Amino acid sequence: MPHPVPAASAPLLEPAIELRRDEGRPLAVQLADALRRAAALGQLRGGDRLPSTRALARHLAVSRTVTAAAYEQLHAEGWIVGRHGSGTYVTTTPPGAPAAQPESAPGGGGGAPAGTIRLVPGSPWVSGIDRAAWRRAWRAAADRDPDEFRSPAGVEQYREAVVEHLLRHRGMAAGGPHPGTVLATGGTTAALAELAASALGPGATVAVEEPGYQRAVQTLLAAGVTVVPAPVDHAGIVVRDVPAGVRAVYCSPAHQYPLGGRLPAERRVALVERARAEGWLIVEDDYDGELRYDVAPLPVLASMAPDVVVHLGTTSKILTPTLGVGWLLGPERVVSRVLEHRERTSTGPAPAGQRVLVEYARNGDLGRHLRRLRRELSQRRGLVVSRLAESGVEVFGDEAGAHVVLPLPSAAAEQRVVARAAAHGIVLDGLRRHHHGPHRWTGIALGYASCSRGDLERSTALVARWCGEEVSGGGPASR
Amino acid sequence: MPHPVPAASAPLLEPAIELRRDEGRPLAVQLADALRRAAALGQLRGGDRLPSTRALARHLAVSRTVTAAAYEQLHAEGWIVGRHGSGTYVTTTPPGAPAAQPESAPGGGGGAPAGTIRLVPGSPWVSGIDRAAWRRAWRAAADRDPDEFRSPAGVEQYREAVVEHLLRHRGMAAGGPHPGTVLATGGTTAALAELAASALGPGATVAVEEPGYQRAVQTLLAAGVTVVPAPVDHAGIVVRDVPAGVRAVYCSPAHQYPLGGRLPAERRVALVERARAEGWLIVEDDYDGELRYDVAPLPVLASMAPDVVVHLGTTSKILTPTLGVGWLLGPERVVSRVLEHRERTSTGPAPAGQRVLVEYARNGDLGRHLRRLRRELSQRRGLVVSRLAESGVEVFGDEAGAHVVLPLPSAAAEQRVVARAAAHGIVLDGLRRHHHGPHRWTGIALGYASCSRGDLERSTALVARWCGEEVSGGGPASR
Repeated sequence: MPHPVPAASAPLLEPAIELRRDEGRPLAVQLADALRRAAALGQLRGGDRLPSTRALARHLAVSRTVTAAAYEQLHAEGWIVGRHGSGTYVTTTPPGAPAAQPESAPGGGGGAPAGTIRLVPGSPWVSGIDRAAWRRAWRAAADRDPDEFRSPAGVEQYREAVVEHLLRHRGMAAGGPHPGTVLATGGTTAALAELAASALGPGATVAVEEPGYQRAVQTLLAAGVTVVPAPVDHAGIVVRDVPAGVRAVYCSPAHQYPLGGRLPAERRVALVERARAEGWLIVEDDYDGELRYDVAPLPVLASMAPDVVVHLGTTSKILTPTLGVGWLLGPERVVSRVLEHRERTSTGPAPAGQRVLVEYARNGDLGRHLRRLRRELSQRRGLVVSRLAESGVEVFGDEAGAHVVLPLPSAAAEQRVVARAAAHGIVLDGLRRHHHGPHRWTGIALGYASCSRGDLERSTALVARWCGEEVSGGGPASR
Repeated sequence: MPHPVPAASAPLLEPAIELRRDEGRPLAVQLADALRRAAALGQLRGGDRLPSTRALARHLAVSRTVTAAAYEQLHAEGWIVGRHGSGTYVTTTPPGAPAAQPESAPGGGGGAPAGTIRLVPGSPWVSGIDRAAWRRAWRAAADRDPDEFRSPAGVEQYREAVVEHLLRHRGMAAGGPHPGTVLATGGTTAALAELAASALGPGATVAVEEPGYQRAVQTLLAAGVTVVPAPVDHAGIVVRDVPAGVRAVYCSPAHQYPLGGRLPAERRVALVERARAEGWLIVEDDYDGELRYDVAPLPVLASMAPDVVVHLGTTSKILTPTLGVGWLLGPERVVSRVLEHRERTSTGPAPAGQRVLVEYARNGDLGRHLRRLRRELSQRRGLVVSRLAESGVEVFGDEAGAHVVLPLPSAAAEQRVVARAAAHGIVLDGLRRHHHGPHRWTGIALGYASCSRGDLERSTALVARWCGEEVSGGGPASR
């Protein structure tokens, strides 16, 4: 008889859990298995709160001894953390699963933080958003009437705001984009899914940086696109190693995800030359290109080669995923394919979030937020880098963005650091997760934007120590 | 040398138009060809305003004689309408292209309306939305903070609002849905695209009603799914004629789109039995199931067979596409596949529109709007039906929804009525557009929700006369 597990506060999904008294295996073992499986499937994600042993026991009609024993086992394995009174949380983030919202802000001082601290990349600094400006934007958007029609290209003023944003913050020179070549999107992977369904098409082959953005890989695979690896090094994609015969290359030249390199000018030229010679499209994922702390950002690839580059941007990293808006900028033939696809299928981004962004940008709040964000993240990065340097760990990656990479000498070392962190309620993101094929680069991709500054300081001190032990050859035996 | 055509007010896209002085064909002929091609490709849509002959001539660096001659030719062919001072509009809606927003509200009395009146299905009655309630909802949503994370299932309160809506307006009995089985979506075709990329998968075969919703067909095709026809009659899908070997059947049992039948109980049972026996999923598109004017709506198929039915709903038809929100309700195995897909790819609907709908529903405004909408559309339907009856045209379709079907004796008759309407600035939607394969059902699918009541009365009188002439065998020769 199947029993769904009731998730505590906001059940994303109820994994179907079957416990059979006649199966021979103890119920606690069956339950632990089922929960492990749910985590591996992404049905339970790092940061999710589990029901209490009492509530789960009642729901499954088993004794509380069963649920307590299962939780104890999972706790010992590092899958869950928690303590009396503050709930039990899943620590792992299975490969490809998204960053989850922390269910509780971890509290006060002391060495061992209560609850979970997530140091994974991809979450923005929403606590820094000026709430008054946010409300102002929504209230201004309230005065616009509902439309009877969703324009396939997006809200006109939104597209103008994007052009302005690209001019100011991404070095798009005059003669650069105009609203006619800019489409609103639902974000980076939403745009990639549309490209896959239109300009690329099922059956195409696309090279993606390896390691790289696995949600892009999964988006392409789900669309029936064949994905091949394009190797990267510290400076970004290795152009000569991109396989021949692809239809497109997906890359992040401003700030390679996850390793953090900025593609140097000669590689940019080489990439564009190969694209032109071999008929590729270059999909430029500029997920956090606005965020650089040392020198001015390099111009985007799309301004160097507007004939072959499709540029994707998003507000999810610089503001919040709540609005669900991004942009696509590309050659007319690609833009028109995406538009045709939207018109044929009646899909495309909703105006609601675009309207709010228009208002947020109109009165300068977006610019102000970006300036504060750069200052905050630059300081956080300095904090993380110096803490790690004290432990003898030199990070990868340019002075940019919202994450750094902590190299570790082996996959085993990576796994150990992730497990030690999990046992302390710290969710880390090993580089294994960022590979589609074999695990070549080992280390931690540490995101520093979303937790509180205090939590960042405390948890980074621990992570630095664990990484330092691995780097100096100590490993967990010497702790 | 290629010259893009500048669209007048809101260029969705600039069709690349090449005029070559050395080509031998007159420039006016080349230009007319290019504009016809752009319309056929959906780059120009019915209702789009064209630039003035003067502006276009300047832009293309040709004489105004050239552009005027091209427009004259297209006008004679019925592709464009317009008169001095109020602009020139595209009349056609190519197959699969979306309903466009009218660029100008057609003005005062007289027989020949100025501008364009769109009587195509699919656009909602946004002019009936209470603007104060709309603003109230947005302002309430303004008070919610931005999230650092977009929940893959959707905003919790939104999913609760959907459950409530389904209980009240779609006959979902107690023991029906709960938020754990409801996902927020970006609308019907967005949800279908997600199903195609997850639970169905590229390479699957799906049967779609024929005639049916061509944007669903196009969505499936773009996802690499093979589409086969499932014939329909006046009562909806003909269950015994659904081809064997499909993975899913896409249908609209509450109000077949476009013919308007309501699937009778015995066919519902037969459909579910075949689905269970042959392992199909049934995708129930309930695009306007809330709108019935005679009897209470039949319960949705999903409450009869929650094990095999995926139910899709949307706010685009009952409210506005501005929010871009809908819902998916289905068996746990399907819901979890869609969630896994969202988590793997970081896609899914943005919270912004969901937040507004939560507030709009919370204080009863959604229910009030639905009651007013039913009253208004029921009256409009009565008006259209009686006007047509006076001309001897008996419509297809139940007393429901926002469109009726006017049967015509042949494809030629359908084409003639569409062309005559176009010449009067009335955009009609022939049933040809709703076929994926051969054109079997002939007539007009007339949408009565979006134009003004005055325009509806005036234009319906004309359409009724033209259809009456075709039905009585008169045809255009006798006019």
